Amino acid sequence: MTRYQHLADLLAQRIEQGLYQGGERLPSVRTLSAEHGVSISTVQQAYYLLEEKQLITPQPRSGYFVTPRKAVPPIPPMTRPVQRPVEVTQWDRVLELVNARLDNDVFQLGSGMPDVSQPTLKPLWKIINRLGQQMDPRMLAYDNLYGVVELREQIARLQIDSGCQLTADDIVVTTGCHEALSIAIRAVCQPGDIIAVESPTFHGTMQTLNGYGIRAIEIPTDSVSGISLEALELAFEQWPIKGVVVVPNCNNPLGFIMPEARKRALIALAQRFDAAIIEDDVYGELAFDYPRPATVKSLDLDGRVMLCSSFSKTLAPGLRVGWIAPGRYFDRVLHLKYIGTGSSAIQAQQAVANFIRQGYYLPHLRRMRMLYQRNLEIFTRRLRHHFPCGICVTRPQGSFLLWVELPEPFDVHRLNQDLRETKIQVAVGSLFSASGKYRNCLRLSYGHPFTDKTDLALAIIGAALTRAMAACMPEMPTEAEATDALALVEEGGAGGKG
Amino acid sequence: MTRYQHLADLLAQRIEQGLYQGGERLPSVRTLSAEHGVSISTVQQAYYLLEEKQLITPQPRSGYFVTPRKAVPPIPPMTRPVQRPVEVTQWDRVLELVNARLDNDVFQLGSGMPDVSQPTLKPLWKIINRLGQQMDPRMLAYDNLYGVVELREQIARLQIDSGCQLTADDIVVTTGCHEALSIAIRAVCQPGDIIAVESPTFHGTMQTLNGYGIRAIEIPTDSVSGISLEALELAFEQWPIKGVVVVPNCNNPLGFIMPEARKRALIALAQRFDAAIIEDDVYGELAFDYPRPATVKSLDLDGRVMLCSSFSKTLAPGLRVGWIAPGRYFDRVLHLKYIGTGSSAIQAQQAVANFIRQGYYLPHLRRMRMLYQRNLEIFTRRLRHHFPCGICVTRPQGSFLLWVELPEPFDVHRLNQDLRETKIQVAVGSLFSASGKYRNCLRLSYGHPFTDKTDLALAIIGAALTRAMAACMPEMPTEAEATDALALVEEGGAGGKG
Repeated sequence: MTRYQHLADLLAQRIEQGLYQGGERLPSVRTLSAEHGVSISTVQQAYYLLEEKQLITPQPRSGYFVTPRKAVPPIPPMTRPVQRPVEVTQWDRVLELVNARLDNDVFQLGSGMPDVSQPTLKPLWKIINRLGQQMDPRMLAYDNLYGVVELREQIARLQIDSGCQLTADDIVVTTGCHEALSIAIRAVCQPGDIIAVESPTFHGTMQTLNGYGIRAIEIPTDSVSGISLEALELAFEQWPIKGVVVVPNCNNPLGFIMPEARKRALIALAQRFDAAIIEDDVYGELAFDYPRPATVKSLDLDGRVMLCSSFSKTLAPGLRVGWIAPGRYFDRVLHLKYIGTGSSAIQAQQAVANFIRQGYYLPHLRRMRMLYQRNLEIFTRRLRHHFPCGICVTRPQGSFLLWVELPEPFDVHRLNQDLRETKIQVAVGSLFSASGKYRNCLRLSYGHPFTDKTDLALAIIGAALTRAMAACMPEMPTEAEATDALALVEEGGAGGKG
Repeated sequence: MTRYQHLADLLAQRIEQGLYQGGERLPSVRTLSAEHGVSISTVQQAYYLLEEKQLITPQPRSGYFVTPRKAVPPIPPMTRPVQRPVEVTQWDRVLELVNARLDNDVFQLGSGMPDVSQPTLKPLWKIINRLGQQMDPRMLAYDNLYGVVELREQIARLQIDSGCQLTADDIVVTTGCHEALSIAIRAVCQPGDIIAVESPTFHGTMQTLNGYGIRAIEIPTDSVSGISLEALELAFEQWPIKGVVVVPNCNNPLGFIMPEARKRALIALAQRFDAAIIEDDVYGELAFDYPRPATVKSLDLDGRVMLCSSFSKTLAPGLRVGWIAPGRYFDRVLHLKYIGTGSSAIQAQQAVANFIRQGYYLPHLRRMRMLYQRNLEIFTRRLRHHFPCGICVTRPQGSFLLWVELPEPFDVHRLNQDLRETKIQVAVGSLFSASGKYRNCLRLSYGHPFTDKTDLALAIIGAALTRAMAACMPEMPTEAEATDALALVEEGGAGGKG
């Protein structure tokens, strides 16, 4: 690397880090030359290079100025879903997303897959192997219906951090959180009944409602404070709602943590209308701030909250170890587990129990929280760089999912079709709505280490977005970043068509 | 062992084997003395010993005769369930049976647990360990929704033996056969619908109907030829039946294999009334005769049979690896799998796939078939010895489950209560009926090697049965075996109260 390239990189980094702010005047050529001990012409060449990259702009007789950066995209406003119970659709789109797992070549920016490549997971393999070497025939037998007791004890212990006073007897192990949610919904609903959900909400929950013929009423949800309690109250007054499904901690897909006062108010509301609360806490332990936020369950006084979770996001989804603390619905939940899957696999349960008991779980969580937070920082920075203006982006408080809102007429489903050739996939926003809303939104995952490939993918998506937005909204200004991103795409050789 | 004991054992064995039939005269003392090269007094002492054991009876001036044995108990007659759709009950009793797994001290003669202690399973552990050592992150990721493709390929290959032409794409992996059945039922039913079942039928299926609010119509079933097609036809004519659940091969609990002609007739009937057939083949590979019997699925022409199975009975239930070949209901089944459990655990699937591909599965099956058949022989012999007259016993054609019918007023549920102190448990017949019929029946498992403990348990049950039957039916003759069994009980020190 030549001297001037080195200097240019250094300056670019400072601009990126905000040491030189947008619009600010850069040091004179002479000053920099003295400061870095390089020749005047080296500094000039470095400045030319940065000018080419549109990072700085020369102003006659005044020197070089940092090119004003795009404004930080705002947070998406409160959502405005359809205000009546509807039947859930969109299964074909969900299947498309799920089936992308089949194709190893697809760069899955849309999936909810955590990073399972970290060294803090290694002891889990050792534990699995040790269990295998024991060749204990009990591992091959039917599990008891409640799940392995050592695991339930460890779960109860971990839940102290969320404010819950549980014992092993309050918990039923399930095949992932998916089974827990599925059981919880059926524990309080018959086909035709109505369940209130945050809008947007996890597509697995939506499809569960669909599959059991339960109607969803989508409640406006704020990407900072969560479900609108005012709208929920109105819905309760208007419809015979059996329960509310919420993801109050590190919400999927909006990333918020519901303030504790609002959690209390939610319980009060559910009590007033005698509804159940189904709390999906699968990302709760991945909140960036420690200690982790309280669960709604921890504020529950009369057992109406069914707390559903798993180790799929914190350890590994392939283990299929989930659980439910069903409160007053315990008996019904146990029956539904029996008729759904009979019992759970023992070895994975025992492995997770040992992993926690031997002290590996909390350090692993700590590392993952830190990594995801670091990923988020660079991911949003680069996303801001590559994506066009006029978008809204969430500010996740934990976990590894980001929600991007594009101007209304935009159709992300068309974007995904356009991206198919480039083998990049995002999660279309409409999956997260019973009525197919949020076609102008997408969910992205920053769960995996940020690499050049991630940057390229963001560039390709950004370029496609910019072009598509220009096409559907001719009045929108096409930014320099579009060209920038396209250049990157062409370099990478992936044919990112707009 | 003294000479006379040795000789007595030999003679007892011959009597047991039927070489000397009941009522037959035994060789004279002189003849035996010459034949075995022992003294006259040794033969006499051996005969005294057998007389004490009531195996032979002296007749003045005629010598010794084999004590007439109890007649072989007849096969249970065709069942006569309630002939209208009913809601399933009995969950509390099923839970009791399932919860017995929690207590390691209980001798579980009622459970459907296979023998997982055989050396032919050892390679499975090795495979599990090898998979663990590879630390392949894919094992920790989400499985694709259909299940691991290598496993589905192996299942398709194995199914050639059952007459099925399947490919990996026809199969969806599930969390045990329990999930497969649960999905299959919901794929064709809404709450309030009617499903026809064999009577008696597996309690898991019954509870699934219960849990989803589906009514069961129990069809009379013969313990040799299976479900009565005549009664099924009448039911079809009378009620809007959506589907039939059958266990046509090594039926649980009756043990029959439905003749192939009747399987064809069943399909024709389902076609005529446009009903689905849900075939539970979980015991099919454990038929004593080789090659294994054909599945109904193999005779299916228009995709109306959903074939459900697992490796829970042939390998180990703790793996929770089941599958379904859902024919024309594929899309609906896939959706129901997604909303029920999301996906399945990968490692267990891959382990089973490797176990089959590496050639360990078929030899293991061969061994298990042989062991179960051998267990059955000694189990029924000893059962006949310990149990009172007046019972009916099935003749299983495979697997490891036996159905015993006692005279009508008898209540097996009371028997189980009486047995509680002795820590022996049988499966109460009423679990296998939607309407709580078969209280006079019980299901026993001969899956585990026959030991002195098994013999003692049969003696205790037999004694309790004899006493209870004497109490509720004073006209019935109490046999010498009752005393015999009680003596055994007292020897064993377990307080088997009648």
